[in-house]
Amino acid sequence: MMSGIEMFGSEFLGTAVMMAIACMVSASRSLSKSAAFRSDWINAALGWGLAVYVGVYVGWRTGGHLNPSITLARVVNHWFNPGATLNGMPMGKGGIPVTATNVGIFILAQFLGAFVGCCIGYLATRKHFDLHTDPDVKLTVFCTKPGIRSNFWNVVSEIVGTAVLVTWVFVNGGTPTQVGPLGVALVITVLVLALGGISGAALNPARDFSARVAYALLPMADKRDADWGYAWVPFVGPCIGAVIGVVLPGIFGLVS
Amino acid sequence: MMSGIEMFGSEFLGTAVMMAIACMVSASRSLSKSAAFRSDWINAALGWGLAVYVGVYVGWRTGGHLNPSITLARVVNHWFNPGATLNGMPMGKGGIPVTATNVGIFILAQFLGAFVGCCIGYLATRKHFDLHTDPDVKLTVFCTKPGIRSNFWNVVSEIVGTAVLVTWVFVNGGTPTQVGPLGVALVITVLVLALGGISGAALNPARDFSARVAYALLPMADKRDADWGYAWVPFVGPCIGAVIGVVLPGIFGLVS
Amino acid sequence: MMSGIEMFGSEFLGTAVMMAIACMVSASRSLSKSAAFRSDWINAALGWGLAVYVGVYVGWRTGGHLNPSITLARVVNHWFNPGATLNGMPMGKGGIPVTATNVGIFILAQFLGAFVGCCIGYLATRKHFDLHTDPDVKLTVFCTKPGIRSNFWNVVSEIVGTAVLVTWVFVNGGTPTQVGPLGVALVITVLVLALGGISGAALNPARDFSARVAYALLPMADKRDADWGYAWVPFVGPCIGAVIGVVLPGIFGLVS
Amino acid sequence: MMSGIEMFGSEFLGTAVMMAIACMVSASRSLSKSAAFRSDWINAALGWGLAVYVGVYVGWRTGGHLNPSITLARVVNHWFNPGATLNGMPMGKGGIPVTATNVGIFILAQFLGAFVGCCIGYLATRKHFDLHTDPDVKLTVFCTKPGIRSNFWNVVSEIVGTAVLVTWVFVNGGTPTQVGPLGVALVITVLVLALGGISGAALNPARDFSARVAYALLPMADKRDADWGYAWVPFVGPCIGAVIGVVLPGIFGLVS
Repeated sequence: MMSGIEMFGSEFLGTAVMMAIACMVSASRSLSKSAAFRSDWINAALGWGLAVYVGVYVGWRTGGHLNPSITLARVVNHWFNPGATLNGMPMGKGGIPVTATNVGIFILAQFLGAFVGCCIGYLATRKHFDLHTDPDVKLTVFCTKPGIRSNFWNVVSEIVGTAVLVTWVFVNGGTPTQVGPLGVALVITVLVLALGGISGAALNPARDFSARVAYALLPMADKRDADWGYAWVPFVGPCIGAVIGVVLPGIFGLVS
Repeated sequence: MMSGIEMFGSEFLGTAVMMAIACMVSASRSLSKSAAFRSDWINAALGWGLAVYVGVYVGWRTGGHLNPSITLARVVNHWFNPGATLNGMPMGKGGIPVTATNVGIFILAQFLGAFVGCCIGYLATRKHFDLHTDPDVKLTVFCTKPGIRSNFWNVVSEIVGTAVLVTWVFVNGGTPTQVGPLGVALVITVLVLALGGISGAALNPARDFSARVAYALLPMADKRDADWGYAWVPFVGPCIGAVIGVVLPGIFGLVS
Repeated sequence: MMSGIEMFGSEFLGTAVMMAIACMVSASRSLSKSAAFRSDWINAALGWGLAVYVGVYVGWRTGGHLNPSITLARVVNHWFNPGATLNGMPMGKGGIPVTATNVGIFILAQFLGAFVGCCIGYLATRKHFDLHTDPDVKLTVFCTKPGIRSNFWNVVSEIVGTAVLVTWVFVNGGTPTQVGPLGVALVITVLVLALGGISGAALNPARDFSARVAYALLPMADKRDADWGYAWVPFVGPCIGAVIGVVLPGIFGLVS
Repeated sequence: MMSGIEMFGSEFLGTAVMMAIACMVSASRSLSKSAAFRSDWINAALGWGLAVYVGVYVGWRTGGHLNPSITLARVVNHWFNPGATLNGMPMGKGGIPVTATNVGIFILAQFLGAFVGCCIGYLATRKHFDLHTDPDVKLTVFCTKPGIRSNFWNVVSEIVGTAVLVTWVFVNGGTPTQVGPLGVALVITVLVLALGGISGAALNPARDFSARVAYALLPMADKRDADWGYAWVPFVGPCIGAVIGVVLPGIFGLVS
């Protein structure tokens, strides 16, 4: 049985590594002195997919949620299947019980990890923030920005994207063959191809909220506000999507 | 043994998820306010490949056909190998018998799923359809359009592409090592690299026909007709290709 | 034990499928009415890698050589390890003995398969050849063309590329984990990234020679000669590279 | 038990193949007569990832370090876990003891292999160096160059990148499913997406230092100095990062 500190460490470090990589990829494409400046969208999509890939490996002991939406979906799944655990393993093989304390540890670790990851990513690309002067671009290195500002429709986009992600996670266990964490990396990649240009494809409340806090706190020339008016969209959408994503395939009898 | 409703659910949800993702990827590349607007062709090819990837996971209980061509090929295969089932598993392990009812359920689910998937994809990218004014581009978000309009040669392209896909599906079982649904994702990716710019690479009657119906029915400003004169090409081509794709490797003794 | 006709069928169909896909990918990027026209180089590299991927699956019963260089390397390997077979399996499990007849069957099937594959690829993209008028571009859809015309240095490039490919094939068996034919697809992808723009990265005498014959024979408007003066470079280079690629890791004790 | 010569051969050949491929990919994107000239950044990232992929297969008998940072991390790991070996296997299954001699053999092989690999890559793209006249570009074919010249912040970038790589390597063993050397290829790919445009993403002292020596020694028109003033950055950064990358997940109890 893992201790609370071990659970925290696994989710914290996994989320931090994921966000650090994702911030660096975003900075590399967005800031003008980088050799990857204005590279094709595939770099953003594959960069996010593989950031999740590395993070899931690092957070493997807790199932590599790295995302409060996934934790929420696991809780909902537990209501339907009382034997289910937070990390999807049978209790005897290291399954983490669904308790309020454990859920709280997971979610706290995810928000803190995402914040620390942003700070690491910022440090690793520090000088490029000094020499790029557009504050809007600097904000999008950290948090999501929709292609068209319409809160309702962007919530819809985030719901659809997160529902697909969560559905995949829950049907995944039943498929005959697997490639491990590479599978979720490919799902994230295609969701960024699908919705990155539409709603920003947060799909994860911690990924966006903590990044917004990091942007607000980090010292930076040519800075703007953190666009807090939009912050609830990539927070609420993924939460609703997570519930749909676990209930819907359950109705169809597809959750293994 | 799966019930008819379970079969329907598996093919329906798998096809819907596939089409929703594919529509969103297409909208992201085609509509002008998206951050992925005019991104490289690799995004289209990988986007379609991974849309199939996710869909096959979701529809795993029925073998993840998501495509009447695959179902047709399984029927043809059954004529040659009377023990063969619709989902390729031995009868005792959950194999679905090749009966007219089951085939009908599969194909109905695929056409309905593709239609619903297009509607979900449309909802998730809703505002971008309002602000983009070119009706031709909006049509290509949904259904295929050839590079050069020549019905005969585009049927040939669709036959070749679908025959390659179906051949791969049928020889796949005999290979020594596998990566699961990632394999078919890569085959779709390369077929979109190969024929996406030529005939549109439908390779699937439901994918194109239901998308055309969805385009015709969905409310949208700056809309044109659904180009029904071309609709038979991506319908007939994949059906012929499916038969060739199962007969040809069978003649060479390569179907496992 | 496979019959000679079965061996022929496996190598023939595998090579034909590989070349058909590769020609279509190349036509899609090179001919001006395609939606993938002038897409990024990654499409060429991934397109070739995945063309080999599909072809190796189709030709799995003979080990999926699809390339006289690989067959040659297997023959050289047999001189060093008398128990080795053409398809790398132990004799009792379906290994194909290294005899002059079998080697002849393999190589004949590869050259004929590559030719037929080009014809299929041409048919599937037929109209695009009519509407594109640059004969040089049409030639490069089929066969390789170096970035700089220098026969000696292009032979060097082809030797290095093929030696890397063959080395990988022979050390592959000893690695702890595998992803099956995906491995060789990734090796081809990176070799096209590395040398596609330099020497054209033929790495396979059949791939280039048969494609040149196909270009010379197929009816086509705005056609030029098949540049036969360069044809020996992508023929001789891969043969030399194949021998180096099997001898070198053998000396280092890395062939499993 | 491997002999010292076998160890040397495995690391030497693996590193040489990796660097040869990486140099060729870089030359293909950077030198103006190549068909891949100015192709998208994804080609650089995937090219490096897959260069490591092939190299790790070739150097599999020694665990495919190809990088003094990895060897250093294995030594540090041995201090914490006295049973640990250089190649991560249990001693009885071919584990290489952590001795000064073995460590010396590994690191010497890596530096020499990287040098020889650069020479091979140079030969395979020889003519393109004659016809491209910009000395700065030729230098970047071989060694790393930061987007912004700030030694301190580039050391930080290299520390972060290498720490992520080494962390992944050490937690990797504990994950439930694997794809073999493809995993590390994907990690390298995303780190080049993340930091290739920032600090150049050396992540490996041998990869940069030996490449700089190769540039300095190889005959070449339009040549500049090898920018030795920057050489310590991609040397020291990866060494510090390696130590952090093994200590940090060890503290969190994530090293398997």
